[in-house]
Parts: sequence; structure tokens; C-alpha cells
Amino acid sequence: MPSRELVVLGTASQAPTRARNHNGYFLRWDAAGLLFDPGEGTQRQMLFAGVTASQLTGICVTHFHGDHCLGLPGVLQRMALDQVTHPVTVSYPAESGEYFGRLRRAALFHDSLALVERPLSAAAVVTETPAFRLEARPLSHRVPAVGYRLTEPDGRRMLPAALAAHGISGPDIALLQQFNVITLPNGTLVPIDAVSEPRRGQKFAFVMDTRRCEAAVDLARDAELLVCESTFADAEADLADSYGHLTAGQAGQIAADAGARTLALTHFSQRYTAGDLAKFADEAAAWFTGDIVIANDLDRIPIPPRRQG
Amino acid sequence: MPSRELVVLGTASQAPTRARNHNGYFLRWDAAGLLFDPGEGTQRQMLFAGVTASQLTGICVTHFHGDHCLGLPGVLQRMALDQVTHPVTVSYPAESGEYFGRLRRAALFHDSLALVERPLSAAAVVTETPAFRLEARPLSHRVPAVGYRLTEPDGRRMLPAALAAHGISGPDIALLQQFNVITLPNGTLVPIDAVSEPRRGQKFAFVMDTRRCEAAVDLARDAELLVCESTFADAEADLADSYGHLTAGQAGQIAADAGARTLALTHFSQRYTAGDLAKFADEAAAWFTGDIVIANDLDRIPIPPRRQG
Repeated sequence: MPSRELVVLGTASQAPTRARNHNGYFLRWDAAGLLFDPGEGTQRQMLFAGVTASQLTGICVTHFHGDHCLGLPGVLQRMALDQVTHPVTVSYPAESGEYFGRLRRAALFHDSLALVERPLSAAAVVTETPAFRLEARPLSHRVPAVGYRLTEPDGRRMLPAALAAHGISGPDIALLQQFNVITLPNGTLVPIDAVSEPRRGQKFAFVMDTRRCEAAVDLARDAELLVCESTFADAEADLADSYGHLTAGQAGQIAADAGARTLALTHFSQRYTAGDLAKFADEAAAWFTGDIVIANDLDRIPIPPRRQG
Repeated sequence: MPSRELVVLGTASQAPTRARNHNGYFLRWDAAGLLFDPGEGTQRQMLFAGVTASQLTGICVTHFHGDHCLGLPGVLQRMALDQVTHPVTVSYPAESGEYFGRLRRAALFHDSLALVERPLSAAAVVTETPAFRLEARPLSHRVPAVGYRLTEPDGRRMLPAALAAHGISGPDIALLQQFNVITLPNGTLVPIDAVSEPRRGQKFAFVMDTRRCEAAVDLARDAELLVCESTFADAEADLADSYGHLTAGQAGQIAADAGARTLALTHFSQRYTAGDLAKFADEAAAWFTGDIVIANDLDRIPIPPRRQG
């Protein structure tokens, strides 16, 4: 399986349909597994998708409307049942922290979990490791809501031909990567720049329920994959605004303004048929020239290859 | 559709499987609609089964293990979304009332519901109407748990031939039913017994997580339909006892001791395949000679016809 992919667990807003479960998105990112917005039924959708509770290293909740969080108790209790003992960070808007408390203790179970609660009261870094930084920013919805952005640090890609030309191989490569320079047996100093090129870190953004706002664009800046709600078609722009949601066209504008690479549209109102949703891609494409995916339940969306330079 | 039937929404204990959602059972009983033990995903299972939130008149929770209650927030929030304004009685074991409180307020929504909360601290009548009495009794599980029994009052069935022989028709039949006797134009008194026969009320019982106990048999007494957990096969009787559950054979014994008519087995451990479950019917049949149904998701089980006498 790809080491970096988004597994779509559910794509319905507000009310599930025959074809669409409530929200749920699992981001596999090397050894990390981030679950975004587990709506009701996420536990079973994970089963259908082959995602296990033990693969979760973090859970990110954007806000506490039911379609974004009612699957949390089932996921947590399944983690306990499966004896997941590694720490799992759970982040959510601090203003609605009481809801997290209720969801965590929604039913009787043996709570052996090592949850690290990370209530977010403003723009904040959720977790930072050598592998990536996960950060959150407040969005503009009817209730406190945040979006998320994962950023891999920039690095360098070693060039096999250049290494061979200098006779650098084996453990010397690791030394070079550690110290950024190596002295050859003949006394020549080879800086890492001479045998490698910059490797841009990959970025992932998750923008759920929100009106258009600057923070959504900031989160999505240069993202290889932007998952963005598009509850409504452009014709319902007034409705979208009054309920604090985006249209497909507005999601396309955000992706374009941010210079994102792939836009995955999701969180569709139950009013739309599959035929209607095909037009969502057109509405987004009016603004955004990158790849557009209409997310369907159990889709697997690979993180696009790194950009060069 | 039949006026009295059980719509099976889910049949899995503890962990859902590809074929079985967590528990959930909708009893359609004339104008009443009782939802028993809504596990996670019940909202969507209702959609698949064609059951709407507006059909619910009562919700009965046996206990607060997640597989019996985590669908409650979704159902309640769906009722609010669908603008259900009629009173809905929600009953549950009083000792675990804090969990109901959390589930009711598990996410942000406009709570316009007219819920009548009915915490049960001992054997009690939940609701009583001219149409039926719904009562609960404590069972023997690892946590506070109750079972439910619905009883229709006994009545009388009018006999068309006897009515015709006495020349009784039209509005006179209603008068006879109201006063139990009618005076004919020729002065003859006709008691209702002469033109009718006893009509036994129907009974339904819902026995979930429990060890064998007297209360389970009392709840199931003479039931036309007994829905009974059988988490384990008889070979796992020790496991069943230690976790406070029944085996298929024990469910059969309860049905037999109670003189029930149809036994619907459900709440199966994820360890069993469809092939294993076929043997559950045999194990119950070693004790119980009535009809046995292995419940599957989205099954519709009609309430058997009335017994005579």
C-alpha cells in the first residue's frame, strides 16, 4: 500500500445517505495515522477500508457538529478493545471541550487509553516531530471550528550519479547527510549541495465546515492534497453562506488562491445526486486548474508525488 | 406493511462486522414505534430499512455498553433535524443515567425534542396506554441492565356468524363492545360472551445482555416474539457466564421456560461465521420447540398471529 494516502471513510454532511456515510478521513503518512472528523459509523467504515484502531496516532476534530464527531466514542472504545496503548493525540476546538468530555465518556468501557488531549483555543501547533508539523487554525463556521495542515520539513534528495562521481557510498552517505559535508580520502571536501538537490516537504490540508476565509487559504498553501468541504453547489451560495459552508466553486477558489495541487471535494449535502456532484468538479475547475477529485466513501487518494525544486 | 413487526437494524455484539452493524431494533406496533438499543450507525441502518425518525414514539435502552447506545446521539439529532415534536419516552437504567445525559448532549445541535426521560431503578412500568403496557425488569449483567416486555391487554374477538344470528350489526356492535351487553328490539338481552370469544393480547419481549436469570423468563412469559441475545455458542458457556452473557442454548431454555412462541437470536460475537450461527439455532432447538430465527441485519420479523383462547 502507498506510504502516504488519504482513505476516505465517509463523505456526507448532516445526514448520511445510502451511498455516503457521515464524515471520516484517515491520513496514512508513513508511520503516522491521523483520523480526521470521525462521524457516526466511522468504526465500521474503518473495517470496510482495512484501517485498524492500532494504526491511529492522532485524531483531529474540526468542530462538534454531530456529523464530524459522533463516531469518536466508537473509535476510542474500539482502540481500548484492541488494547492500543501508544499515545494518541486528540485535538479539537477548546471552546467546545465539554463535548469532547462527553464523547470520551459516552458509554461504559474500560478506558485504558493514553490519550493526549490538545484543546485548541487559537492558531496552534498540534504536534511537531522530525517527520512533520501538524497545525490548526480557526475557521469561520456557526460554531467554533478549526482546520488542519500537515507540513513535512524541506530536505535534500541525494543524487546517485553525483555520489558515484565522487566515490561516495555506503555509510559515508549517512555521514554526509548528518554533517552536510564529507572529506574524501584525497582530502577534497564535498558539500552536500554538490551531490544532492533540494527536496520540498509535502503538505496536506484539511478544511471542513467554514465560510470563505483567509485561514482556509493559509492552511492549504502549496498543499499536495487539500481536502475541502463543498456542501453546496454554487447555485446555493446564499444557503452556503447562511449555514457557514462553502460551495464547490468557493472550494476551487481556495485551492487556486493557495496554489494547491490536488483538491478533494467532500461533505456533500444529501440533496445532491451523483449526477449533481459531477458538476461540482466543473464549478471548482472554473477557478482551479489542478486535479479535482469528487470523494466517495472508501476511495483511496494517494498523496501526489513531490514537487520538484 | 404489517402493522406489527420487528425491523432488525443491527445484530453485532461488541464489534461490528462487514455483515453486522451494532445492535438496533425497531418494533412497529400499530401506531407506536419503539427503538431498542440503538448502537452506532443506527441512524443509517434506519435509512436502509425505511424507518424514519418521525416513526419513533419510544426509545428503550437496556444498558450503556457502547454497542447498545452509541447510536442514540445520531438518532436524537436526526429527530431534531426532521422536526419531530411529538413526545418520545426514553427509558434506561437509572444507575447509569449520567451516560444518557452525555449521549443526549454529545454534540452541538438545536435540541427541540420533547423527550420524556424515564430512568428505571427497579422493575417498573415504563408506559401504559389502552393499547399496551411497556415494562422493564433488571437483568443480571456486569453493569446495570434491564429487559423489556410489551403486553397488549386481553380483549374479545367479535364472531360475525353469532352477531348475524342475533341480528346485531352496525353501530350496535360498538354499543355492545362498550357496555358488554345489548337489548334487542324483541327485549332479549345478549351478553357480549354470546357473540364473541376471548382474544388474547399479544406480547413482545426484549432480553439483551444478561446471564440466565428469573427476570428474563418473566419478561418472556407467553411472548409471541422473544428477541434474546445469544452472544456465544454453548461451547463458550464459561466465557458467556464470566462476561454476563447467554449462549444460544441458554436463550432456548429461557424461551422454553417462558412458553414463548418465536425466538429471535441476535447479538452475536464477531468470532462466529454465518456457518457457526446456523448451529446456534440447533443449540436453542435442543430446549425450545417453537420457531427460531437467526436475526440478520435488515430482517423484518412479523409478530406471529394471535394465539387462540
